[in-house]
Amino acid sequence: MARGLVKRNEDYSRWYSDVIREAELAEHAPVKGCMIIRPYGFAIWEAIQRALDDMIKETGHVNAYFPLMIPESLLKKEAEHVEGFSPECAVITHGGGRKLEEPLYVRPTSEAIICSTYAKWMSSWRDLPILINQWANVVRWEMRTRLFLRTTEFLWQEGHTAHETEKEAVEEVLRMLEVYRRLSEEWLAMPVITGVKSRSETFAGAINTYAIEAMMQDRRALQAGTSHFLGQNFARAYDMQFQGRGGALEYAWSTSWGVSTRLIGGLIMCHSDDQGLVLPPKLAPHQAVIVPIYRTDDDRAALLEAANGIAAEARALGVRIKVDDRDHLKPGAKFFEWEKKGVPVRMEIGPRDLESKQVVLVRRDLGKAGKEFAPMEGLAARLPGIFAEMQQALFDQALANRRDHTIDIDSFDGMREVLNGDLAFVNACWCGSEKCEALVKKETTATIRVIPDSGENNEGVCVVCGEAATRKPVWARAY
Amino acid sequence: MARGLVKRNEDYSRWYSDVIREAELAEHAPVKGCMIIRPYGFAIWEAIQRALDDMIKETGHVNAYFPLMIPESLLKKEAEHVEGFSPECAVITHGGGRKLEEPLYVRPTSEAIICSTYAKWMSSWRDLPILINQWANVVRWEMRTRLFLRTTEFLWQEGHTAHETEKEAVEEVLRMLEVYRRLSEEWLAMPVITGVKSRSETFAGAINTYAIEAMMQDRRALQAGTSHFLGQNFARAYDMQFQGRGGALEYAWSTSWGVSTRLIGGLIMCHSDDQGLVLPPKLAPHQAVIVPIYRTDDDRAALLEAANGIAAEARALGVRIKVDDRDHLKPGAKFFEWEKKGVPVRMEIGPRDLESKQVVLVRRDLGKAGKEFAPMEGLAARLPGIFAEMQQALFDQALANRRDHTIDIDSFDGMREVLNGDLAFVNACWCGSEKCEALVKKETTATIRVIPDSGENNEGVCVVCGEAATRKPVWARAY
Repeated sequence: MARGLVKRNEDYSRWYSDVIREAELAEHAPVKGCMIIRPYGFAIWEAIQRALDDMIKETGHVNAYFPLMIPESLLKKEAEHVEGFSPECAVITHGGGRKLEEPLYVRPTSEAIICSTYAKWMSSWRDLPILINQWANVVRWEMRTRLFLRTTEFLWQEGHTAHETEKEAVEEVLRMLEVYRRLSEEWLAMPVITGVKSRSETFAGAINTYAIEAMMQDRRALQAGTSHFLGQNFARAYDMQFQGRGGALEYAWSTSWGVSTRLIGGLIMCHSDDQGLVLPPKLAPHQAVIVPIYRTDDDRAALLEAANGIAAEARALGVRIKVDDRDHLKPGAKFFEWEKKGVPVRMEIGPRDLESKQVVLVRRDLGKAGKEFAPMEGLAARLPGIFAEMQQALFDQALANRRDHTIDIDSFDGMREVLNGDLAFVNACWCGSEKCEALVKKETTATIRVIPDSGENNEGVCVVCGEAATRKPVWARAY
Repeated sequence: MARGLVKRNEDYSRWYSDVIREAELAEHAPVKGCMIIRPYGFAIWEAIQRALDDMIKETGHVNAYFPLMIPESLLKKEAEHVEGFSPECAVITHGGGRKLEEPLYVRPTSEAIICSTYAKWMSSWRDLPILINQWANVVRWEMRTRLFLRTTEFLWQEGHTAHETEKEAVEEVLRMLEVYRRLSEEWLAMPVITGVKSRSETFAGAINTYAIEAMMQDRRALQAGTSHFLGQNFARAYDMQFQGRGGALEYAWSTSWGVSTRLIGGLIMCHSDDQGLVLPPKLAPHQAVIVPIYRTDDDRAALLEAANGIAAEARALGVRIKVDDRDHLKPGAKFFEWEKKGVPVRMEIGPRDLESKQVVLVRRDLGKAGKEFAPMEGLAARLPGIFAEMQQALFDQALANRRDHTIDIDSFDGMREVLNGDLAFVNACWCGSEKCEALVKKETTATIRVIPDSGENNEGVCVVCGEAATRKPVWARAY
């Protein structure tokens, strides 16, 4: 079946590129590491944006827009931040035909510009909290790039908030982590583990970084979103001060959080199969497609009438449905195309189906095994239920994959074997030292993905050094 | 009333800045010529985006995303295009800590990157038309900048299409011009004149540029949107070739069209008054606000209950309404704030109003003159009608301003007097020579805004040189 696609178990990495190319999601741009997001890929991003933007607004945030170009001097004010980001930056040295007096950085993230602006907006505690999000492009020079997962330019949203108290800021960080968990699990059908990062994986300039981590089908981890507690670090660097309730000047507590077009990479790696893309129905640009199968013009007219009737009924129920009436393609070519593009439900209708008032219905994730003859009567009304079942099935399948490949390990040997072998999420105790963490990375390339929130069974001894440990991180090789 | 705002007739330019500052729409960024779009300003942009994005999709286009960074060599392929744009570009010379082998331009517009990509997507006439739009930021180095109207970085949409025939491409150019006319007139309540630009004002690399032009309150023109017929120029430069129906290779016909955050500048200059911003209800982030007026806690509770009741009813009808329950501000301060922010309808409700089951209702554009006591019974249901009336009134007022200040002139002396004096839109015949056009610009700073579509009364003699003329452009000083 899979012309043009290598199988997952043959070459997972090439399979990923094949899925993207065959589904026409994206392609490489002339500038190394940059990508062109094609209309079908962008429609998925638009669906993610709409879902997330609604959640961001429901939690009290508003959108705004801050500039792309950041003066070097401004970026340099937070020492740790600039140390982390400036090696990755694209630098503008000329503008309007002249050399600039001061180089400008293309934003790799916007803490510098946003915090320095918030400083001007806050004078009293009454001006807080400031709860703003922006949808934007950012640039980070990357050595190894991969479409969606790691590109030099990518699209994202970045929320930046400033609060009166530490408690409020921490609550915000966790609130947005929960929003990201819901986005991932309820929309992308991608189960995630939430927790805090170790120091070495913390955002440059932050006190703590929280993340959602998902398992891909090859049992590698994908960091799918982060929420940072910045403490008063950026407030001190950018002078975010306000008059507190007691009358004294205080530094604000700030947060930032973001998810990016990387989510689409996760979506692909989490659900797709050897036939191509598999999309969760809630995010699919077309949730269903009807392919009429005809030889004569009379058949064509009758079948299109029936197909358009079903489609009209379905659209009235909010279903995104397409009737594929292209004449220059054979039905087989159409099936193949929609399969590669991951359309959740395909319906075929031929002259004999029309006579028996039914269609052949195929759910993308079940394939031929799930083929059924569905009566046309009441068909449109059944679709939302089929989508909901498929959405849940994709989630369950991904969750089962994670459960089946999560292992509790208490020896470094055992850890090495798994993380240099078939891969898994490894739960193993850690003393907290960077030295032990670095040793694991050196010998397995795996990292601590998160230290999960749940406080269960964390007492033990460090898998590396044997010292007492109170943390039990998830270790894995990651994208 | 207008604390903090200068009056329009005292200093129009400062008034414009005052309106933006007092309504918290935008402010200057640390990088010269760039702006921060504040949440209230961005909410207006989001409303414009939503309206326009719907129209763009209804006319058969899809969204995509192309990269920010364009290699110098790619930009240089269309000679006229690069000549027009490269002096305005921001140039990235360093990335990832190293000097780049080839400088990258931050996109000033995306014809180069998009046309070179389309070239790869078309092999047969069946692949056409390609109808794609993107929402993006662009950078053009500007000497004189003004918030929204002309900024170094701005947000816009840019549509790029490729067609099989010249006829289809021209139809597309005019279709999108009509979409822009509708956006401007039906959403921004800003009447526009449509037509073609003279050669000197044509987009670099285009055959023809069509535009919508609006008159501001100071009788200057604002180019609010453009739609370009690119002929086969970019197809030749970027190799957009396809196998035609006859079997031979043909060059595609292409178009591009865009509107930007400049529209918000137009919106402000078209409708606002000495009290601040005036917003057309269809684009207002808050269409109505209710301000309860209380002294005691008992009053507060009863009034908020009534206000929230009206608001809930209104929201059910799709009205964007806010109850201003802030305790630390006096009602007068609230009225003043919402007036400066241009909220279309303000409702005040005090204890005595509650007894008589009414509110005081003030329509922003009518001010005190339009103050009425409105019964609470059926109030919410009346609001959509009030918004529609106000929307129409703003359009009518702007149209009247344009009609009252549009003059037919047949002598160069008369033209000079008007265009160096009180300003107007001047209809005056033109022979078509760049020399005559340049002379008008030299002596008045006015330019040909558009040569309108309508073919009426265009026969005459050139207002400058007296030669025979078949065109009657609109001449004006412009932003």
